[in-house]
Amino acid sequence: MNQEYPSALLEKAVSEFGKLPGIGRKTATRLVLHILRRKEEEVTAFADSIVRLKREAKYCRECHSISDTDICPICSNPLRDHSVICVVENIQDVMAVENTMQYRGVYHVLGGVISPMDGVSPGDLHIDSLIERVATGEVKEVILALSSTMEGDTTNFYIYRKLTQYNIKLSVIARGISVGDELEYADEITLGRSIINRTPFTGKTI
Amino acid sequence: MNQEYPSALLEKAVSEFGKLPGIGRKTATRLVLHILRRKEEEVTAFADSIVRLKREAKYCRECHSISDTDICPICSNPLRDHSVICVVENIQDVMAVENTMQYRGVYHVLGGVISPMDGVSPGDLHIDSLIERVATGEVKEVILALSSTMEGDTTNFYIYRKLTQYNIKLSVIARGISVGDELEYADEITLGRSIINRTPFTGKTI
Repeated sequence: MNQEYPSALLEKAVSEFGKLPGIGRKTATRLVLHILRRKEEEVTAFADSIVRLKREAKYCRECHSISDTDICPICSNPLRDHSVICVVENIQDVMAVENTMQYRGVYHVLGGVISPMDGVSPGDLHIDSLIERVATGEVKEVILALSSTMEGDTTNFYIYRKLTQYNIKLSVIARGISVGDELEYADEITLGRSIINRTPFTGKTI
Repeated sequence: MNQEYPSALLEKAVSEFGKLPGIGRKTATRLVLHILRRKEEEVTAFADSIVRLKREAKYCRECHSISDTDICPICSNPLRDHSVICVVENIQDVMAVENTMQYRGVYHVLGGVISPMDGVSPGDLHIDSLIERVATGEVKEVILALSSTMEGDTTNFYIYRKLTQYNIKLSVIARGISVGDELEYADEITLGRSIINRTPFTGKTI
């Protein structure tokens, strides 16, 4: 789009917003003009929150999740079960699992999955530090909660090979029909897996 | 969603992003975590562009469009026809008309339309300054290019009554079937108007 902006300041702000994922030039213009209508202190607060996050946010020394302190609130919580580690790709996934209220262990954020196509090799991920945590002997179970993709499966297998020498339980989150889904519309691979990995029925629904 | 953020800095930035129109909490989290992965100088540039825009952007003394100078590039351009004023609601509309490459006159940005429901009265809009521009006697035509809504029509009528005493041509942009649209799917009001306002056919397609 060969759009001529009446102001270089406007154009600059729009182009900065346009760098965000999923924000095109039109949406960026709309967002920037919305910001322009707000009070100066509100705009400064918005800008400050981003710069402060970037400058001051830390990554937990234990699990590599984002944190305001050296050790994140989950890793430093004595009520959590430190013998169970849930391995996830990123911080959003930590929040997603936390939202389920079904997990009381701790986490390990890999920072991605092995993906030769995107140039991500095992060395780019926090896999070594996971092995170090397991090597302390204090870990009883590692739950692999990565995406159900080729890259996720590759990463699962890589970690499996690295951890197989340790006396721990290694599990992977269940893959099957989503709760609320109708069988008719499920893809055959998911349905196939859900039959292979069927679980004993105890008469209770989830 | 009762989402617990592992960092107060993260939560603050997400809540600031969530104030933008059309950005929910989930999208805000995605955008903020994307920003967190960028270099510090990129993040600062992003934040600076917004604060600078808010602090330094001016509004053109003539047409009230955004500008880096007291008079915007369009109003100060001697090649534009200053005897024709196109009245629009906001800055986006100036850019939209400019993109058509069909207009060589100047603009007047009202800053909205009359909307008693939203508490917007004529006094809140740049209508007086439009009348002042017309009163100089240098304007030959005013083109009303407001939204085709009840509020747009009300504003058109209000401006019409204010300008009727001056010896100028007052026109409104054509309303009809959009180029590329099929009649079958057009709403009946638009179709009705497009029949009433039919234009002489000269054998040329647009």
